[in-house]
Amino acid sequence: MAQQARAIRTRRLLLDAAAAVFGERGYERATIGEILNRAGVTKGALYFHFASKEDLALGVLGAQLLDEPLTPQETKLQELVDQGFLLAHRLQTDSLVRASVALALDSGATGVDRAAPFKAWVDQVAEALTVAKARGEILPHVNVLDTAELFSGAFAGIQTMSQVLCDRKDLTHRVVVLLQHVLPSISTPAVLTGLDMSQERARFLAAEYEEVRQRREEGGPANAEE
Amino acid sequence: MAQQARAIRTRRLLLDAAAAVFGERGYERATIGEILNRAGVTKGALYFHFASKEDLALGVLGAQLLDEPLTPQETKLQELVDQGFLLAHRLQTDSLVRASVALALDSGATGVDRAAPFKAWVDQVAEALTVAKARGEILPHVNVLDTAELFSGAFAGIQTMSQVLCDRKDLTHRVVVLLQHVLPSISTPAVLTGLDMSQERARFLAAEYEEVRQRREEGGPANAEE
Repeated sequence: MAQQARAIRTRRLLLDAAAAVFGERGYERATIGEILNRAGVTKGALYFHFASKEDLALGVLGAQLLDEPLTPQETKLQELVDQGFLLAHRLQTDSLVRASVALALDSGATGVDRAAPFKAWVDQVAEALTVAKARGEILPHVNVLDTAELFSGAFAGIQTMSQVLCDRKDLTHRVVVLLQHVLPSISTPAVLTGLDMSQERARFLAAEYEEVRQRREEGGPANAEE
Repeated sequence: MAQQARAIRTRRLLLDAAAAVFGERGYERATIGEILNRAGVTKGALYFHFASKEDLALGVLGAQLLDEPLTPQETKLQELVDQGFLLAHRLQTDSLVRASVALALDSGATGVDRAAPFKAWVDQVAEALTVAKARGEILPHVNVLDTAELFSGAFAGIQTMSQVLCDRKDLTHRVVVLLQHVLPSISTPAVLTGLDMSQERARFLAAEYEEVRQRREEGGPANAEE
């Protein structure tokens, strides 16, 4: 277990270093040597985790997705709401998640598959919406793919705008506004009434997330009940 | 008139050149000399139009806003819809508009006021929504500023996603999807029923816009009836 925890830490060191160097130099001009120096790990350790610079970029891009499933909720739409709030929290607090999104949105980063994170988000949201539709939570006219792409694209834009205007301080509020404008158009009325899209919900989820993360970093199981 | 048309053309040459150099080198490393070379105009002509590199950047950033008012429509919400369709068309066809949006979204472009174009968009949308609210076109609970910021931010994101996934080929469809998801949450039912948010509307507006632009480039008045 200690060894596994060490490997997770080394991987994170490498991703943090790569994210920092990509952010400063741009992806194209970043070198493996500089990332190694920054991370303070051996070449062997790097190649154990990542085969190439592009592989490092994919690792950074992947950091914006949650690596643990969300706590299941009564409705799939609530889980979708929760996912939006959690991403906002992680963008506000985790420099690796910020670097990940910046890399995906950096039009200068040719040679990186910037479509991959968009597709991963769309897939994740579309999966949730498909279940929601099968359960009758969303209205029959909703085109799952269109709505999933709208959520992913709109979220990318509001977080950029929030970053540019106020360093993401108001991001949670902007997510609330997005949800309040879009969910009434897709949710059945009964489900809509039960959805919690409030700032309080966002705060609760952030606290829960930080607790789980801390437990995991201390080397224990992610979920104490398991 | 011929002299004025020439000045407009020189300004456009300079903006196109600046946009191209910013796009290739990044704003920070671009030089006035390179922009001059690319534009093929004299230093005097450049400084007649722009005081500095930053001034050129502001010119490029400003190119995403329409420099002519839209044709007035029966409702302000229809004008807002039209504005979205026209921006999509201009992003698809005008490299300067693309460069303008890319510069606003380029997190590496420190030293440029990237907040300015976001604020300009929010102001423009908020103005339209304020009139719409006064006319009873939108629901009383709508917070004009929140909704204006949502439209601007979400649009920025869906156009980035469309660019990354398919070089903006599906942008008009994505704008239709955005409008269909957001307008039912803000519009009064009677106005909503009358809104044209179709691809056909987008095509009609694009054709009208190109006609006016062509007339103007030929040096005549923008609107033949005036």
